[in-house]
Amino acid sequence: MTDLPSHVEIQEEGPREGFQIEGGPIATADKIALIDALSATGLRRIQVASFVNPKLVPGWADAEQVVAGFAPRDGVEYHALWFSPANLQRALNFRDRLTLFGSITVSASEAFSKRNLNRDHDGQLEAMRKNVAAHQAAGVPVTRASVQASFGCNFSGDVPAERVVSVLADALALAEETGCTIERVSLADSMGWATPLRVERVLGAVRSRWPELKIVLHLHDTRGLGIACAMTGLRMGVTTFDAAVAGVGGCPFAAHPGAPGNIATEELVFLCEEMGIETGVDLDALLDAAALAERILGRRLPSAMIRGGGLGALRARAAA
Amino acid sequence: MTDLPSHVEIQEEGPREGFQIEGGPIATADKIALIDALSATGLRRIQVASFVNPKLVPGWADAEQVVAGFAPRDGVEYHALWFSPANLQRALNFRDRLTLFGSITVSASEAFSKRNLNRDHDGQLEAMRKNVAAHQAAGVPVTRASVQASFGCNFSGDVPAERVVSVLADALALAEETGCTIERVSLADSMGWATPLRVERVLGAVRSRWPELKIVLHLHDTRGLGIACAMTGLRMGVTTFDAAVAGVGGCPFAAHPGAPGNIATEELVFLCEEMGIETGVDLDALLDAAALAERILGRRLPSAMIRGGGLGALRARAAA
Repeated sequence: MTDLPSHVEIQEEGPREGFQIEGGPIATADKIALIDALSATGLRRIQVASFVNPKLVPGWADAEQVVAGFAPRDGVEYHALWFSPANLQRALNFRDRLTLFGSITVSASEAFSKRNLNRDHDGQLEAMRKNVAAHQAAGVPVTRASVQASFGCNFSGDVPAERVVSVLADALALAEETGCTIERVSLADSMGWATPLRVERVLGAVRSRWPELKIVLHLHDTRGLGIACAMTGLRMGVTTFDAAVAGVGGCPFAAHPGAPGNIATEELVFLCEEMGIETGVDLDALLDAAALAERILGRRLPSAMIRGGGLGALRARAAA
Repeated sequence: MTDLPSHVEIQEEGPREGFQIEGGPIATADKIALIDALSATGLRRIQVASFVNPKLVPGWADAEQVVAGFAPRDGVEYHALWFSPANLQRALNFRDRLTLFGSITVSASEAFSKRNLNRDHDGQLEAMRKNVAAHQAAGVPVTRASVQASFGCNFSGDVPAERVVSVLADALALAEETGCTIERVSLADSMGWATPLRVERVLGAVRSRWPELKIVLHLHDTRGLGIACAMTGLRMGVTTFDAAVAGVGGCPFAAHPGAPGNIATEELVFLCEEMGIETGVDLDALLDAAALAERILGRRLPSAMIRGGGLGALRARAAA
C-alpha cells in the first residue's frame, strides 16, 4: 500500500447536489447553516449553489440569497455552478465571495448527452465553444473539463474507455484552440455504473493518453460500490475527489428515486484518514455537519457513517 | 486485475443475522418465506436460524418452526448457529434438513471476548475444548475456526495483526489437539473497524503463517467501507465471503443503533459479477429477496442496491 497518496483534496458538493434534487422547499437559512458548518470542518472547496433557471430547478431559486448569506472563511474556496451565459452573469455579481471558473463539459454517452445536456456530442461542443467565449468575455477562466457518464449509462449501456478518451480529446482540443488552460479533468460516474475494474480501465486509458492530467473522480454510490471505486482511484494515485456530505445528491435525470447520491464525504474522509492519507478534514465536525444535513432534509440520508460514527471516541475510551 | 478469482462463494447470513437483531416479533412464515426466496437465487449456503436461549434472543424462539418449515432445495446447504451443548441438541433434531458443523470461536480482543463471549481468551479456549467434545460426542464435525474483532474493537481499540495470528494459533492448536480438521477460518470484522489497509495487514499476517488456510471474510458495513474491504479481499485471492441480504444484521453487542449490518449480499454479487467473477447468484432474484426482507422487517434497510437496482434491465433497454 506504499502506492497510496499522502494526502487528498475533497471537493464538497453536498450543498449544491443535495438542495438541487430535493422536492420540498428548504429554508435559505438552513442552506447557509450547512455551508457554514461544512466550511468549519477543514474542507477547502465547497460548491455552494447552482445558478439555474428557477422554473427548472425551483430548489435553487434562492441561489443569490444563499451566496450572499454564508460566512466566508479564510482559505476556503466557494464554488458555484451555471450552464448558460445568462446565469454566468448572475454568478459574476459574487466575484468577491465565489471562486469563479468555467468548465467544458461533455458526455461519453450520446443518449445521456441528449437527455442531460439537451444536445448530441457535436452540439455540445458547439455550445461549449460559445460557453468558453462568454467566460473569456467576462474574464472568468475556463479551467475544468468534465466527462459525464464516464463509466456507463442508463440509456446507452456500457461505455468503452476509448469513447471517454475520444470525447475528452475533443474537449481538450477545444480548450487548446480557445486558449484555456485546463487544470483538472473530472471523470464522472453520473449514473452509478463504476466498478473498481471500470475505474482502472478508464483511468488507465486516460492516463496513457495524457499522463500529466490532474484527474478528479466524481463517483456516485447508487449501487454501493462508490467507496470501493474511490479506493481504486487512490491506489492509482488520484488525489482529488468530489463527494457530498451525508451522501446526498445524485443526478436528477438518472431516475433512481431514493438511491444514494454522491459518495459520502465522511466515508471518504474516514477511508483516507484511517489509512494515513491526510484530508485536512475534522471527521467529528464533518459528522456533525452530516447530522445537520439529515435534519435539514428531513429524511434518512444514505451515509453509513452518520449512524456508525467515527472511531476517535472509541479509541479514546479504550485507551482510558 | 488478472489477480482476481474466477468465482467466489457467498455464505448468506441474512435470515439469522436479520431476525436476531430486530426488536419486534417477525412472523415465522415470513422468516420461512425469506429463506425460500434466498434459496431460489442460486445461493448455496444459507444460515437460517440460531438455536439460542429464547430469553436472551426472543427473536429466535421459533428456531425449530423455521427450520422445520423451509422448503429444502437441492444443492443448497442450510446452516444454523448454536453456542451451548444444550442448544446443539436442538440442532441435532434437524440432521436431515441442516448441514451441521461446529466452530472454534475466539476473539482477538480480550474486552470483546468478555462482553460478547462472556469469557476471557483462556476461558474461551477452555469452553471451546468442551464445545469440541460435545460435538464429537454427537458425531458433528468441527470444521470452522472464527476470530472475532479481527480488525479492531469498540472496547479495546485497534487490534494488532499479531494478536489475530496469536489467538488463531491457539484455536488451530486446539483443533489439532482434539483431532478436528478445520476447513475454513473466518476473520470477522465484528464492529466495523476494517479498512482495505487493515484487511491487507491481517490477511497478510495470517497467510504468511498459514499459506494453506481457506479464509472467509466476514465484513460489516458499519462505516461504509465493507465493499471496499471485500474488494481488497478479492484482490488478495479470498474466495469466500459472508454477507447478508439487504445488509441486515450487525452485532447486537456492538451498539450502533440503526447502523448497517453485514455487507449486503446483492452489493457483493454486483461487485463480483460486474468484474467477471462468478457467484452463481441471480442478481435480479436476489434483489427481489432484498425487497422482501425490507417488507418483512418493515423498515428501510441499508443496501444501496435495493434502490439503485441492477444493470441488466438498463442494458437490455439500451440494446433494444
